Amino acid sequence: MTDKYEQVIELAKRRGFLWNSFELYGGTAGFYDYGPLGAMLKRRVENIWRDIFVINEEYYEIEVPTIGIEDIFIASGHVGGFSDPLTECLKCKEAFRADHLVGDVVENPDTLSADELTVVIGKHNIKCPECGGGLGKVYEFNLMFKTSIGPGGKRSGYLRPETAQGMFVDFPRLLKFYRDRLPFGVTQIGKAYRNEISPRQGVIRLREFTQAEAEIFIDPRDKTHPKFGEISDIILVLYSQKGQEQGSSEKMSIGDAVQNKIIAHQFLGYCLARTYQFLVRVGVSPEKLRFRQHMKDEMAHYAADCWDAEIQSDRFGWVEVVGIADRTDYDLKAHAKQSETELNVYVSYDKPIKVERFAVKPNMGVLGPMFKGNAGKIANALKLLKSEDLSGETIEVVVDGKVIQVDKEAVSFENVTEEVHGETIIPHVIEPSFGIDRITYSLLEHSYFEEEAKVEEGEEEEKRIVLRLPPEVAPVQAAVLPLLTRKELIDPANKIVKALRKAGILVAFDDSGTIGRRYRRNDEIGTPYSITVDYQTIDDGTVTIRDRDSMKQVRAGMDGIEENIYDMIYKGKSFDEAGRKV
Amino acid sequence: MTDKYEQVIELAKRRGFLWNSFELYGGTAGFYDYGPLGAMLKRRVENIWRDIFVINEEYYEIEVPTIGIEDIFIASGHVGGFSDPLTECLKCKEAFRADHLVGDVVENPDTLSADELTVVIGKHNIKCPECGGGLGKVYEFNLMFKTSIGPGGKRSGYLRPETAQGMFVDFPRLLKFYRDRLPFGVTQIGKAYRNEISPRQGVIRLREFTQAEAEIFIDPRDKTHPKFGEISDIILVLYSQKGQEQGSSEKMSIGDAVQNKIIAHQFLGYCLARTYQFLVRVGVSPEKLRFRQHMKDEMAHYAADCWDAEIQSDRFGWVEVVGIADRTDYDLKAHAKQSETELNVYVSYDKPIKVERFAVKPNMGVLGPMFKGNAGKIANALKLLKSEDLSGETIEVVVDGKVIQVDKEAVSFENVTEEVHGETIIPHVIEPSFGIDRITYSLLEHSYFEEEAKVEEGEEEEKRIVLRLPPEVAPVQAAVLPLLTRKELIDPANKIVKALRKAGILVAFDDSGTIGRRYRRNDEIGTPYSITVDYQTIDDGTVTIRDRDSMKQVRAGMDGIEENIYDMIYKGKSFDEAGRKV
Repeated sequence: MTDKYEQVIELAKRRGFLWNSFELYGGTAGFYDYGPLGAMLKRRVENIWRDIFVINEEYYEIEVPTIGIEDIFIASGHVGGFSDPLTECLKCKEAFRADHLVGDVVENPDTLSADELTVVIGKHNIKCPECGGGLGKVYEFNLMFKTSIGPGGKRSGYLRPETAQGMFVDFPRLLKFYRDRLPFGVTQIGKAYRNEISPRQGVIRLREFTQAEAEIFIDPRDKTHPKFGEISDIILVLYSQKGQEQGSSEKMSIGDAVQNKIIAHQFLGYCLARTYQFLVRVGVSPEKLRFRQHMKDEMAHYAADCWDAEIQSDRFGWVEVVGIADRTDYDLKAHAKQSETELNVYVSYDKPIKVERFAVKPNMGVLGPMFKGNAGKIANALKLLKSEDLSGETIEVVVDGKVIQVDKEAVSFENVTEEVHGETIIPHVIEPSFGIDRITYSLLEHSYFEEEAKVEEGEEEEKRIVLRLPPEVAPVQAAVLPLLTRKELIDPANKIVKALRKAGILVAFDDSGTIGRRYRRNDEIGTPYSITVDYQTIDDGTVTIRDRDSMKQVRAGMDGIEENIYDMIYKGKSFDEAGRKV
Repeated sequence: MTDKYEQVIELAKRRGFLWNSFELYGGTAGFYDYGPLGAMLKRRVENIWRDIFVINEEYYEIEVPTIGIEDIFIASGHVGGFSDPLTECLKCKEAFRADHLVGDVVENPDTLSADELTVVIGKHNIKCPECGGGLGKVYEFNLMFKTSIGPGGKRSGYLRPETAQGMFVDFPRLLKFYRDRLPFGVTQIGKAYRNEISPRQGVIRLREFTQAEAEIFIDPRDKTHPKFGEISDIILVLYSQKGQEQGSSEKMSIGDAVQNKIIAHQFLGYCLARTYQFLVRVGVSPEKLRFRQHMKDEMAHYAADCWDAEIQSDRFGWVEVVGIADRTDYDLKAHAKQSETELNVYVSYDKPIKVERFAVKPNMGVLGPMFKGNAGKIANALKLLKSEDLSGETIEVVVDGKVIQVDKEAVSFENVTEEVHGETIIPHVIEPSFGIDRITYSLLEHSYFEEEAKVEEGEEEEKRIVLRLPPEVAPVQAAVLPLLTRKELIDPANKIVKALRKAGILVAFDDSGTIGRRYRRNDEIGTPYSITVDYQTIDDGTVTIRDRDSMKQVRAGMDGIEENIYDMIYKGKSFDEAGRKV
């Protein structure tokens, strides 16, 4: 019995959506090619993401290299901590994720250290799953692909494990671009890499993949969102921390979830909503979509809250496809430290506030004669003292590493009131991070249907495979089918093809086989509209348009066909409006 | 005196087109970031390329990994031959391109071997340009970034030096996708890498860059193009082999150039034409564009013909931005050999042809008793003989490495006439290969103008920087400017912003500074249209639209403004039609 993954992958390979990479040379796990239809599908998914996040949220996209230098990944923690525990078979030399091998004998194997895993493997006498050989000592294997920039191996480079770091590194430039004002967001769609030890889940676990990430820099004192009202009524399936403890998810509006403190704040809630809208728009079934909150022990120590969008797949169960986190000021602080550069924003108050402050006033008339050339340094050191430092008999300061005692009469102090116009803050970062490959696979799976239908009027029903892709993401957007391969039908068909292409619509011209067979070929790649040119076209200039999902047909004019199709794909025009029922 | 490169780069950095990568950590030569405006500009350039080559030529795009396995690059020759000659300073350890150091003392230094370069450096006593130290022996440095796939360093991976190889490797799958018919084309837009020894030309020589390549597989017996008539009248500046010998380029129609055998054939000419149309559409000046043919000694030995599109830049002179080559069957043959797989196509003839063939008929009645178990093998060997092999006294065949003599009477032969329905051919490959980064930089340079103009009516003239980008590629497509920051003007301005975004138009809202200053800010980033909301807007629902290039203004309705702007950007509507002159 084939499962849905097999059905989808069979179709995907046969029709040019997904191919194993380097097949000509035997292939390599963890790499997939997007064939002609797959690449177009993926591109359309990315463009819808852009429409939502770049155009409509105004989080401009940037593009930085996929190779990064070492400093970046020292700061981000990837050099030190981006690893999986590895054990090798002593006999066949095959490598395995150690935590995957002990899943049956311990709980939460991913929380164990390499040494602990070595002990577990020894104690339970776990052997190589391939050949039964003994397993070696477990060690941490860094998952970044490493390379060398320039000759001589002097400068290490890494293929980025996420697109995010590029946006943190560019923070000073971005802040200027946005004229020093918060909040602002920036996005990136591009390749990221993870040198998996032994990937075994097809398109779900890739060594090279595409991420779409947004980093939104916000004022930590205000995590509301000005457009929250637009989305607060959207109902999501939430699988919260509490829900996971109780083993049940619940449907709830985003407004209520923020109100009830299930989602930490409005800004995060807003991102969940836009994520939901994006996923459904590209073709994920809302019934197979939920938002799971990270459990406390699963969340990064610095994160304020974190939710994954998970999509249900037939073979893999609930698969994480998006992570949405409030990462607080962790990333900017880490890069500030590594680069020894301040990464912060001066925020003006709406009106100045008055602040009382303790102020030390050194008396230079006394200090000068007493300390001569050192007096200035000592005065500066005195200014930094707090009121408690001045309460003793003598006052001590440290200058150039030496403790110096200063007579009390050389110093006076008072409380002063100052007007403060703003403050310097480190922005917090809200990060929605999308796995485009998993999303693309998921929507293929959710769009895949097999049903019984007649190929042509009057014939027996037989299996029809149909990809019910939203017209906006379908790779081929229209098929043009001359009823017969005769010049008088081919010519107008070619004219239609040309008009559609000029309007930017991807068209397939197909003149081989019966019309029924050609409909089938287009159904299984998800072509939403098939346009047939027949003898009536010559008479009255009309063609039939067939709707993929309902298999209904309408008769419409050849003139303006490109606008007719365009409006159905992009402007929500319904098929019933496209022409006269046949 | 600053040159144009400096002017453009200053603007590009300041306004968010191009930034040095990893600036926070001191930067690394050969890497550039596309900032918010640069990334959008580049994306639009790529999308126009797609419109021309993917949608309109129907060369479907695929997407394969940027990491490739070793076999691919052994076949392609990159493991063996993709290198530059390197010499290191013995004192300061800096690395240099040896051929660049000897440019003043020998001609065509790029034709010299590493050993020859070592000799030249010694003979002319050439020293390190940085510190004057002695230079080491020259060796060939491979320019591919190398990495390791999976743990243990067992499997080498390389960052692809070009996108092309992915399309050759997928040839069997692609051929099936196109239902075994020639010609077909396939494209890829993506990252490629070249680990330059010491890149010193800013954005012109990058270690990570974006290519857009098409591989078009054609029947070697027919290099005409069915749509040649559409483009044969286009006039290009051609700098042919002969022209280069004479030191002059000439203007010529593509039709004439093919007719006169300057361009090898129609298919190549067609690609030159589409390349020209693409470059001019994205904003390259036709006056600063020429097509240069590769000289015979510069062309790869297998290539039938090769032309570069070159763009003139102020600092770098003529820069290659596109290469268009007829690569014959070289790539498919190389991969067929390395993979031990046949990469070819069976082509049916329109009608069968009759072929006379010499046929050997072994007489099994004689061979059987004579050779027993070996008789079958010997019979097969006999069938492969040619008529001249049968003219001697005895007949010899080699079976299992042994020479066997066969009696003449064991063999008869005759000429037979056979009907042949087709043949198996190895397609030839036409490859247009575009350097997207260089094109993007070039069009910025060609669009950059400084002029004197009034900021506002009645004021003095002062310098205006304007990027005259085609509206289709301008990153920000419209600016919305409320005359004053008052609610009654901000509200309709926001409404316009929302309507434009819904139509997919990238809008900047700007309410700070005088209107004149805001126009200037938008002029220098190339925003083609600025929409100003003023008090008349409240009265009659109209706004002004200002044209970037002419600085003219028209008054147009707020309702339908998104369609008005959209049609000017994408549908060739002229500015004069956009509203009533002010």
